Amino acid sequence: MNNILIIGCGLLGSSLLRKIKKKNIAKKIFIFEKSKKNLSKIKKLKLPCEIVKKPENVIHKSKLIILCTPMSQYKNLILRINKFLTPKNVITDVGSSKVSSLKIINKNLKKKIFWTSSHPIAGSEVSGPEYGTQNLFENKWCVLIKDKRSSIKQIKFLKSFWKKIGSKIIVMDAEKHDKIFSITSHLPHLVAYNLVKSAQDFERKQKYNLIKFSAGGLRDFSRIAASNEVMWRDIFFDNKINISKAIDLFIKNLKDFKKDIYLKNNRSILKKLVQTKKVRSKILKLKQDTNKPDFGRN
Amino acid sequence: MNNILIIGCGLLGSSLLRKIKKKNIAKKIFIFEKSKKNLSKIKKLKLPCEIVKKPENVIHKSKLIILCTPMSQYKNLILRINKFLTPKNVITDVGSSKVSSLKIINKNLKKKIFWTSSHPIAGSEVSGPEYGTQNLFENKWCVLIKDKRSSIKQIKFLKSFWKKIGSKIIVMDAEKHDKIFSITSHLPHLVAYNLVKSAQDFERKQKYNLIKFSAGGLRDFSRIAASNEVMWRDIFFDNKINISKAIDLFIKNLKDFKKDIYLKNNRSILKKLVQTKKVRSKILKLKQDTNKPDFGRN
Repeated sequence: MNNILIIGCGLLGSSLLRKIKKKNIAKKIFIFEKSKKNLSKIKKLKLPCEIVKKPENVIHKSKLIILCTPMSQYKNLILRINKFLTPKNVITDVGSSKVSSLKIINKNLKKKIFWTSSHPIAGSEVSGPEYGTQNLFENKWCVLIKDKRSSIKQIKFLKSFWKKIGSKIIVMDAEKHDKIFSITSHLPHLVAYNLVKSAQDFERKQKYNLIKFSAGGLRDFSRIAASNEVMWRDIFFDNKINISKAIDLFIKNLKDFKKDIYLKNNRSILKKLVQTKKVRSKILKLKQDTNKPDFGRN
Repeated sequence: MNNILIIGCGLLGSSLLRKIKKKNIAKKIFIFEKSKKNLSKIKKLKLPCEIVKKPENVIHKSKLIILCTPMSQYKNLILRINKFLTPKNVITDVGSSKVSSLKIINKNLKKKIFWTSSHPIAGSEVSGPEYGTQNLFENKWCVLIKDKRSSIKQIKFLKSFWKKIGSKIIVMDAEKHDKIFSITSHLPHLVAYNLVKSAQDFERKQKYNLIKFSAGGLRDFSRIAASNEVMWRDIFFDNKINISKAIDLFIKNLKDFKKDIYLKNNRSILKKLVQTKKVRSKILKLKQDTNKPDFGRN
């Protein structure tokens, strides 16, 4: 392939960079990164790329452009690079919610330019180029979004690209994507944030030192609750309708559960606990997680 | 030490058994186990113990008696062994909630017998003697409960025992214990169960295949939601008052969060997401979890 321009070089951008280099997918990898802190890390790590101060200057030299910034930066970036884009560019992003961000893309991107959104289901609670790893996408799903700005040719191109990166590909529309991930990803994250916040509220009120006893379950949630706050604020805002519905469904289940334990409804509680256990087996069967007990931590 | 009788030989009982043997803490280890399935596993694994069919027959030979069964079995076990117990026996259990179980113990245990309850903060989503490991308690907290049935002498004895097992000891009363663990352990578990249940409800309703996309966060919760259902039913029932309060606090936070994302309250959301991040740092500083990103899974 020709050159690739990665805009935003944190955990995801730098992982892509490493893998593109390793697999020799591009001649040159251009990096545009706003954060001075990240830039100095990229230099210190000697990541194999050409750092550019003006992304607009290398667009004509880049076949593929990948946005790896928080979604709230898309609009400004599009306005900045818009007039340099041509229909030959393949443009994608790695954002975690799609309907709202595609509205912004469709509204601001100039006519006849394609944009095919990607969502690699990969990440971590840590942020920054120093945590990137070329294996981040290995055997992970990457969702490609079929939308009015995408073309069959571009989808084909991106399928081939993400396969080289190590991902398994699935194509769906933005609405379905946002519904699915409101449940499998966005709800778990906000639940983790709110569970940890509840522990903090309790600690403040009771003046107990709780955190040292977190190994009973709380520590698992604290990992997810340590995820990047800007990225997650953007996701929560962008997918708020689906997420609100997910919160309502979850609160309904919590209330039913509370009633069950209050009434010591043995049959109902056991049924629920046995049912939910099955999901773990499914996840392990699908190789979506390590099968070692306790994630193999101890 | 003299001999030790372990009643219930699943994950915790068999882990204790392995460690007691390894550290040569007892002359003989007697095991009483009701489940035929577990018994055949214990035999197959050749765990170093003497299996007894009647625990009452070896009580006079055992200094220490440790109950490692679900809490709902305590009453029947106490009634069975009551008349064989003497004040010389040190009796403990490893249950995860204390106020209710101590009520049952106090009501049924005959007079002048001591019982000092323990709660080792150790476990896993898997059950059964085949998963036991001698390192399960290493550097983990073990809470000892000061109660009217405990004596200074017995607490001292158990402190020494759990230290040999590898635990760090803290003594507190049952009320404080149940409040703390309603937040750090019981709430996270019921949240995990209900989150997975919500995903199942959604899947059924929308007819989407969600589970294959669980790597976005759901898979973490599925691990905890795979925990033993009988053990957890007992905990939820026994500590229902504290747990109900924890659910209320948590639902209040969820509703506030929903409002914040609905109104796109940037400042409030960012403040919350940054605050909760700090708990992870504390947990890692206290060495309550691995510091590897993503639990070192990938």
